[in-house]
Amino acid sequence: MDDELESGNLRPYVDRPRTFPNMRNKAYNPLIFRVLMGINVRVLLTLLLLGFGVIFYIGARTSPIIVFVFSVCIISFLLSIYLTKWVLSKDEGPPEMVQISDAIRDGAEGFFRTQYGTISKMALLLALVILSIYLFRSPTPQQESSGLGRSTSAYITVAAFLLGALCSGIAGYVGMWVSVRANVRVSSAARRSAREALQIAVRAGGFSALVVVGMAVIGIAILYSTFYVWLRVDSPGSMKVIDLPLLLVGYGFGASFVALFAQLGGGIFTKAADVGADLVGKVEQGIPEDDPRNPAVIADLVGDNVGDCAARGADLFESIAAEIISAMILGGTMAKQCKIEDPSGFILFPLVVHSFDLVISSVGILSIRGTRNSGSKSPIEDPMAILQKGYNLTIVLSVLTFGLSTRWLLYTERAPSAWFNFALCGLVGIITAYVFVCITKYYTDYKHEPVRTLALASSTGHGTNIIAGVSLGLESTALPVLVISLSIISAFWLGQTSGLLDEAGNPTGGLFGTAVATMGMLSTAAYILTMDMFGPIADNAGGIVEMSQQPESVREITDVLDAVGNTTKATTKGFAIGSAALASFLLFSAYMDEVAAFAQEPFKQVDIAIPEVFVGGLLGSMLIFLFSAWACSAVGRTAQEVVNEDYKEKPDYGRCVAIVASASLREMIKPGALAIVSPIVVGLSFRILGYYTGHPLLGAKVVAAMLMFATVSGILMALFLNTAGGAWDNAKKYIETGALGGKGSECHKAAVTGDTVGDPFKDTAGPSLHVLIKMLATITLVMAPIFL
Amino acid sequence: MDDELESGNLRPYVDRPRTFPNMRNKAYNPLIFRVLMGINVRVLLTLLLLGFGVIFYIGARTSPIIVFVFSVCIISFLLSIYLTKWVLSKDEGPPEMVQISDAIRDGAEGFFRTQYGTISKMALLLALVILSIYLFRSPTPQQESSGLGRSTSAYITVAAFLLGALCSGIAGYVGMWVSVRANVRVSSAARRSAREALQIAVRAGGFSALVVVGMAVIGIAILYSTFYVWLRVDSPGSMKVIDLPLLLVGYGFGASFVALFAQLGGGIFTKAADVGADLVGKVEQGIPEDDPRNPAVIADLVGDNVGDCAARGADLFESIAAEIISAMILGGTMAKQCKIEDPSGFILFPLVVHSFDLVISSVGILSIRGTRNSGSKSPIEDPMAILQKGYNLTIVLSVLTFGLSTRWLLYTERAPSAWFNFALCGLVGIITAYVFVCITKYYTDYKHEPVRTLALASSTGHGTNIIAGVSLGLESTALPVLVISLSIISAFWLGQTSGLLDEAGNPTGGLFGTAVATMGMLSTAAYILTMDMFGPIADNAGGIVEMSQQPESVREITDVLDAVGNTTKATTKGFAIGSAALASFLLFSAYMDEVAAFAQEPFKQVDIAIPEVFVGGLLGSMLIFLFSAWACSAVGRTAQEVVNEDYKEKPDYGRCVAIVASASLREMIKPGALAIVSPIVVGLSFRILGYYTGHPLLGAKVVAAMLMFATVSGILMALFLNTAGGAWDNAKKYIETGALGGKGSECHKAAVTGDTVGDPFKDTAGPSLHVLIKMLATITLVMAPIFL
Repeated sequence: MDDELESGNLRPYVDRPRTFPNMRNKAYNPLIFRVLMGINVRVLLTLLLLGFGVIFYIGARTSPIIVFVFSVCIISFLLSIYLTKWVLSKDEGPPEMVQISDAIRDGAEGFFRTQYGTISKMALLLALVILSIYLFRSPTPQQESSGLGRSTSAYITVAAFLLGALCSGIAGYVGMWVSVRANVRVSSAARRSAREALQIAVRAGGFSALVVVGMAVIGIAILYSTFYVWLRVDSPGSMKVIDLPLLLVGYGFGASFVALFAQLGGGIFTKAADVGADLVGKVEQGIPEDDPRNPAVIADLVGDNVGDCAARGADLFESIAAEIISAMILGGTMAKQCKIEDPSGFILFPLVVHSFDLVISSVGILSIRGTRNSGSKSPIEDPMAILQKGYNLTIVLSVLTFGLSTRWLLYTERAPSAWFNFALCGLVGIITAYVFVCITKYYTDYKHEPVRTLALASSTGHGTNIIAGVSLGLESTALPVLVISLSIISAFWLGQTSGLLDEAGNPTGGLFGTAVATMGMLSTAAYILTMDMFGPIADNAGGIVEMSQQPESVREITDVLDAVGNTTKATTKGFAIGSAALASFLLFSAYMDEVAAFAQEPFKQVDIAIPEVFVGGLLGSMLIFLFSAWACSAVGRTAQEVVNEDYKEKPDYGRCVAIVASASLREMIKPGALAIVSPIVVGLSFRILGYYTGHPLLGAKVVAAMLMFATVSGILMALFLNTAGGAWDNAKKYIETGALGGKGSECHKAAVTGDTVGDPFKDTAGPSLHVLIKMLATITLVMAPIFL
Repeated sequence: MDDELESGNLRPYVDRPRTFPNMRNKAYNPLIFRVLMGINVRVLLTLLLLGFGVIFYIGARTSPIIVFVFSVCIISFLLSIYLTKWVLSKDEGPPEMVQISDAIRDGAEGFFRTQYGTISKMALLLALVILSIYLFRSPTPQQESSGLGRSTSAYITVAAFLLGALCSGIAGYVGMWVSVRANVRVSSAARRSAREALQIAVRAGGFSALVVVGMAVIGIAILYSTFYVWLRVDSPGSMKVIDLPLLLVGYGFGASFVALFAQLGGGIFTKAADVGADLVGKVEQGIPEDDPRNPAVIADLVGDNVGDCAARGADLFESIAAEIISAMILGGTMAKQCKIEDPSGFILFPLVVHSFDLVISSVGILSIRGTRNSGSKSPIEDPMAILQKGYNLTIVLSVLTFGLSTRWLLYTERAPSAWFNFALCGLVGIITAYVFVCITKYYTDYKHEPVRTLALASSTGHGTNIIAGVSLGLESTALPVLVISLSIISAFWLGQTSGLLDEAGNPTGGLFGTAVATMGMLSTAAYILTMDMFGPIADNAGGIVEMSQQPESVREITDVLDAVGNTTKATTKGFAIGSAALASFLLFSAYMDEVAAFAQEPFKQVDIAIPEVFVGGLLGSMLIFLFSAWACSAVGRTAQEVVNEDYKEKPDYGRCVAIVASASLREMIKPGALAIVSPIVVGLSFRILGYYTGHPLLGAKVVAAMLMFATVSGILMALFLNTAGGAWDNAKKYIETGALGGKGSECHKAAVTGDTVGDPFKDTAGPSLHVLIKMLATITLVMAPIFL
């Protein structure tokens, strides 16, 4: 293919005008943004302050901890506004860059609008379903005793669900909003200095990371304190504070519902565009995939924004929300069992951890500074080293603040040294996160042996490349699983020996220990998300530089940034799956607590020796396989549509974006519906079967097994897909550095095949599985009443 | 590549002499065969009769059922001798065929000898380990009360293990012995008539199928009756008959131990040779993989014999042995719980079912006859239709005999209609097997939509072909899982409602119901194995015809047979995984029974809500991924060695076979050791952890979870690997029929890549997983005492 290009066989395309038309008739801004933009800044500030006043008043009536959380969140929002202003103040470069960037922005915003339009319709439908389910089930005895009626709890759950969905949507939008604006500024800055380009990309990523994490925290805090004040919790005859977190599960489900479809739709879009660009170039015109004459090239760049920025924002929002809620439930349960006088510390602990997360990650983000003389062209430093330095700083700070928070909130006179054990649990989590990142690097970075072996296997052809990649991916599951196993067991053990005893004198802190470890793992989430967002922004900047035909030196800078972005993207995926693994174990425990509360009998065991329960497990694992199949084949089909279009006249970018958008929205429905419908169907069927065979709680048990097996298979499958995809990508890059024949050799062609296969693995199916795992956990939490 | 061939670019090879030298200095026959061959037939018969006399005497002292089983087995052995004689009486064709066939035979026997030499050393080592474990653990109370000392039970277990290993080795040898002799006779017959060729291939397959199944049955029957008589079972103060089957677990473990390494070594050999031939042809010389000038071509044909015939023989031997033993254990447990006076019917039921299997499969095999005028060249009929007709006959007979056996053995006055419920369970199993075969066909046959879609995806390149194949494979897991789930639940329910009640009046036949369903599924095993063995024999015959340059009309016949062989191979894999799924659930239950017996306390639950147990599950699933990774990469590495050799002078078939053989023996150790060592390590570690954290039976519980999760993941992974591999293979074949551009097109090249990837999937990793699943189950059964 490249030969043809080099020999100039492509005259008709070379002379074509490269224009990047706006893809819609009028510029679109969501209503809320237009209103906000239209208001005078002082009026806006006044309004905001008023709102904050109300929130603080409610917070103050709940707990001083909540006030602290509110304050930190608001400060970090202010910081994020500063970061945006800083990024937006940078110049957008020459008109050709602006033109391309506008085309990307139009495409991304257009897709986002359509996608979230579809998602919001589905969310409303689901809200109605949840409402009717909750209206027809009997409330738990706790709720009854607290006077919380059937309809109140139904409305609460649905409201929480919708709020979660809305916040998740905003999180996704914010991620994309900043990335489509930052990309061109990074390209422009790359003309001046690598360091400045890096700083812009990091700060843009930091902005959305702070907003995403901050919104997850403040959303839960507002819900919690509103319910606290409204339901007069802890006053005599009312609800107990330890039962309050169960009311929040709707929020987590709303967040994961939106995240699932955001990730699916965005993932299918980005990879269909990518594979499509590759195929159009190869099959139809013999031009490289990132050439401006390729009609799918803009769709590819749009994909980075909607698939990586928006979807990853929604994904991490959902991770943090689900993890906070499940840890709150577990903290409440433990505090109740241990009869701790003031359980609010245990319940609110996760909110505080993530507040500190905002603080320390801000420090980490701001530590990445421009050079002293940013005007001159400084030599290119290794951006990875700079990012890593910031990460190390954040990690050190997180150890300190974590210790502080455990001492502050988890100290109890019943077990004076418990807080220290929990601090160690947090340390276990932090170390786990760090080790996960290292393992992912080992398997996906071409500095190490696995990717080099993979590249070598490409030299004997396409087939051996694929076999080697699949083997590498399958093998790469082993170490992470060992690490996760070790951390679950050690955190559980640390919690168990914390000295906290239940009424009967049994140690009882184990599960909370694993919860604290999960929090430790996620305690640098905002910084990790920043690094992750950095990737697609740098990728886009590279694309803009390429398409606007900047000089070689500028491309060099963006190429380096892009390569670093690939590494950070891969490592944060490892991080995401690790936290999903730990979080789902918590959510599972929270589910069992909830079933016990609804069923008014202990629900402590999921016995897989019962055939029906075993079948549930079988179905759960199968769900993962089927979901992955559908996610991958959706990419293949959508890419096919890109190719099958006829681009005789000129590269019609807009049409290409529209085709990919509509196809990927259509394709996201099937796997998404599978994920949502199947636990409900399984739970209901086995509930009915249990009713006729005299098996109490059979539906709930089978769903529990389904959840556990799906989680385990999902973790493994996601690790396999992510690592194999990343390794293929980097094996190709390694060969492109000139190894084994370099670009254009047979070996490189085989490596390109691997890369194509890896695309849907690592950017569609893999990340969707992270979300799926947690979505399954939250859906079972919300739907638990109908399984009984 | 083909273009080059057609344009005659290969002068240096075209003129080369095609000789197929013997690969060793003197012809090799195992000692036992040489001795047997050396004896006068009458003397042999007398000796055999004497042996049978002893066996019958012991059998008669045990139970009339055992006598029946012995008689059927001996009759079927006689029948199998008739079949061999019939096959061997056919002519071997012209000298060039004989030469090729001799080369294949030498290669196969040489590899078999080396491979089983390695395996037997490992088996002896493991026997010592088992011996020391059993010598140092305390016997169960039942054993103590029956006076069965510690050392006696140790020797019994080890002897059973070694016998199982030996029988499995013989089963493998027999499978290979006949196939390397039948292949050339099929080729020769193909010169005369398609029907005769088919008949020879079927009868040769039938011979080894009857021997394999017969040996599994008679081996267990001999062990059972010997122990019965020797230990004076059921006499006062001695062992109870219901505890007897537990002594047989060593036999199952021995069988699966050998089968695992046979399948791994053979699978790596066959696919490394296949991929290697492909690569040598493509990379080095531009000749097709099945061209006589390709040095790896003989290794490829040898691989069919050692990888498919020998390994599949060992695999099915192990399946049947493990399934019989676990069903005997469950039958005994149930009979005990229900206080049935004479439990021997329930215990010996599986032996009877498989005796009938021998009878009805023989009828099926013999129903495939030559045409009336076998001398003339009859038009080619569809051999699949003929085989299917035989299968249908066998299925109908199996329904009848199954009903008969349930009425005969499972009738009890305590629950007069129980036998009918169990007969229905058997029907469930038979239907499951049938549906499984249909589903596999749907996903792998190019008459249906999935493979056609896959072929279409090849038209856009290598990458989309792989994506589509992976999606197809992942998706194909869904229906089989639903079928398995349904059959587990319905068989359990049928058993539960059979009317059998335990002491406390609870229904108790559920688990035995699933056992009966498994037996139903395996009730046509001998016929299925015949169809399976047919595949590689036909494949080899085709290779011989091709290499000896027979006229087009002969090739046509072997091509048709080969294509049918591919289908039967794929469908029997579906059958194997289905029965493995059911059997492992039985083995799991047997494991729990055994732990309860050893621990002298009830062991009824495996609660995955306990973190350590959950971790066990995580590790179990991970084991499957890692094992698959290592199996696939072993093929890649071995194939690489084939390519890296230098074949400048002439195609050195012998050297190529030797390279593949030594590499595949080296490569089989790592995955094999992983499978054996990891459950032991996990069980021991958690036993120690449990000891220090005050968790009784933690080791046993964690191993149970590991087993279950590994089973579920293994079933899904094997389905994925087998189906994807089969579909890729047939997509290539579909394109070769002329569709989508036909042979030599870009589309075909992409399909060849898929086929190469699918090779280790479907013939190395996939089938090894079947064995692994059951090996894990039997190893935990044998090693249970050290987990406590």
